[in-house]
Amino acid sequence: MTVGIVKTYYHKFSEGLKLESGKTLAPVTVAYETYGKLNRERDNVILIHHALTGSAHAAGKHSPDDKIPGWWDFLIGPGRVFDTSKYFVVCVNVPGSCYGTTGPASINPNTGKPYGLDFPVVTIRDMVNLQKKLLDHLNIKKVFACAGGSMGGMQALELAIMYPDFVEKVIAIATNTKLTAMQIGYNRTQRQAIKFDPNWNNGDYYNKTQPVRGLSLAREIATITYKSDISFTRRFGRKFHEESGSIYDLNSYYEVESYLDYIGNKLPKRFDANCYIYLTKAMDLHDIGRGRGSFEKAVSRIKAQVLSIGITTDILFPTYQQKEITDLINKTGGRSIYREINSPWGHDSFLIDFDKIDPVIREFLQQKDLGRTEKVAL
Amino acid sequence: MTVGIVKTYYHKFSEGLKLESGKTLAPVTVAYETYGKLNRERDNVILIHHALTGSAHAAGKHSPDDKIPGWWDFLIGPGRVFDTSKYFVVCVNVPGSCYGTTGPASINPNTGKPYGLDFPVVTIRDMVNLQKKLLDHLNIKKVFACAGGSMGGMQALELAIMYPDFVEKVIAIATNTKLTAMQIGYNRTQRQAIKFDPNWNNGDYYNKTQPVRGLSLAREIATITYKSDISFTRRFGRKFHEESGSIYDLNSYYEVESYLDYIGNKLPKRFDANCYIYLTKAMDLHDIGRGRGSFEKAVSRIKAQVLSIGITTDILFPTYQQKEITDLINKTGGRSIYREINSPWGHDSFLIDFDKIDPVIREFLQQKDLGRTEKVAL
Repeated sequence: MTVGIVKTYYHKFSEGLKLESGKTLAPVTVAYETYGKLNRERDNVILIHHALTGSAHAAGKHSPDDKIPGWWDFLIGPGRVFDTSKYFVVCVNVPGSCYGTTGPASINPNTGKPYGLDFPVVTIRDMVNLQKKLLDHLNIKKVFACAGGSMGGMQALELAIMYPDFVEKVIAIATNTKLTAMQIGYNRTQRQAIKFDPNWNNGDYYNKTQPVRGLSLAREIATITYKSDISFTRRFGRKFHEESGSIYDLNSYYEVESYLDYIGNKLPKRFDANCYIYLTKAMDLHDIGRGRGSFEKAVSRIKAQVLSIGITTDILFPTYQQKEITDLINKTGGRSIYREINSPWGHDSFLIDFDKIDPVIREFLQQKDLGRTEKVAL
Repeated sequence: MTVGIVKTYYHKFSEGLKLESGKTLAPVTVAYETYGKLNRERDNVILIHHALTGSAHAAGKHSPDDKIPGWWDFLIGPGRVFDTSKYFVVCVNVPGSCYGTTGPASINPNTGKPYGLDFPVVTIRDMVNLQKKLLDHLNIKKVFACAGGSMGGMQALELAIMYPDFVEKVIAIATNTKLTAMQIGYNRTQRQAIKFDPNWNNGDYYNKTQPVRGLSLAREIATITYKSDISFTRRFGRKFHEESGSIYDLNSYYEVESYLDYIGNKLPKRFDANCYIYLTKAMDLHDIGRGRGSFEKAVSRIKAQVLSIGITTDILFPTYQQKEITDLINKTGGRSIYREINSPWGHDSFLIDFDKIDPVIREFLQQKDLGRTEKVAL
């Protein structure tokens, strides 16, 4: 069942957020949504972390007229895997984003104008700290579970490392312990697409023309990496867009091109180009080993039980990265299991293939203790 | 041994080339190189097909001062696998390119200015027809073998289909029978990068500012697909470019970004943006089944023995595509073998991993008859 009509809440911390870089982002507003009810013991909390262009709106609709519900609606609701008749589910928009939490498009109190590139670099750890700050404010001492895919999974892992006693179960999907050179490379080309748009204007485009073409191209490049060869072949194959002309016209195109064009053009209508730059940068910096002595030391801090989910056709976050999460945790004395979703939809599967994700998460949430015996073949 | 100092030859066909589209490209100049000597029987010819940004300069140096030799130098020369003490090796620059053969940057005789977007769309089959026309002109009735990787491999396959009695052995590396939706998608994002550059100016930028940023971004996007996760990790990992600032500076970057920047900036110095658009379009159109009744009918025309080589880490042309070539040929009564190169360098391996490519091609060239028994596990 759906959670029904929901709303986004906002809380402003005047004192701001101390960032990993040493800077302070102040004031900082946090946008968040909650579903279900906090129990008397305040221990039935599930924290949901969103991905790159996601928001706090993870479930339900803001109005009955909304065409689509929140981004993880199929997992959140009464009787759903994140059961709101049982759990109090919280999702927080990350700093650097443009869905209510302070980011580059927010007003810089020092200038009265949007931050633009004066916004400080934020990291995955800063995102987690802001979530923790909000949960403290809500007087929540511990979360039963946290869950996220892609950039959301990075936050889930960091939460378990940064606040080992704060979370019991971690669900990390299609994510990793650090970005690889190839993943940084993909992010870079997307940032370059934005920066090469003359309208980007070094980040100063608010109240002017937005860098629509740059952001749309960034989204096109990213979209290919979110899909898979097999899903593209099934959906588009070599279908030609007949209305575009003869195949011998330079400007004619295939259906897959028409689709990428459509997908690319959609993003600038709902997302900010500078936010895209800041959040991909935050991902590039993701490395659980940074400043913690060693990778193993970082992992060994984890007390939570960790479910790591890989997707067979994910070309952006290959499954060896998710196997590595489980392997590392178990090697350092922790408790983790790896489960693989055999899904054709590539990286995007974590947002769409709920029939396969649901039972895996359900089993994990019900399991009392994983034990420390399970080994993963790498 | 090297072939030593070589030169590019040019031949102008005043009558032009009849294109697959029905248009005629006239006049058409062909740039080509030859290595070794044509024997008395004129039957020792090996035709080499270049890839997207390649040229006719496949081996040797144009001057002793040249820093690097032709693009397939390690395979061509006395004693090398394409042994110029035995074979007469010919490589022809394709139409639509900018290395001497007529392309969008060439002068349009009707206007006295570069063609730009008035250049007609060319296809892989047009490339092959121009090569055939040149070989006819050189009075060559048959080639012993033809070979190419990527777009070069597409030409090799088309030669065997279009002129079944003209070629005895085909070597097709890291290529396919048709472009997939994903491959078209990658090409599209690269063309969009060029088209979004204001300097592209709808293809009319000659004697003005070149769309350097667009072409460099296209090259960056492409470069990632030419590499592999493992090669990027080995070479760059998460190495940070220390001189670029603190990791918390938005403009600081990782070594892999510095590399992509370098690679991107190099291409516009030697390649034309419109050519890039036309040649990626030619690849998109690649489909050996087009206009031939069926895919099987197209394949069944092949009389040559075909060696199809796949590269384990190729993310742009996955190995199932090269296995498919061999499988289709054998199913339709032809003779083909599939060999896999276990190389970490991704798609680029066909240009660099000569230790592994050499013996596979050598064995194939020496083999008298493949027989029709070999099956490939798909």
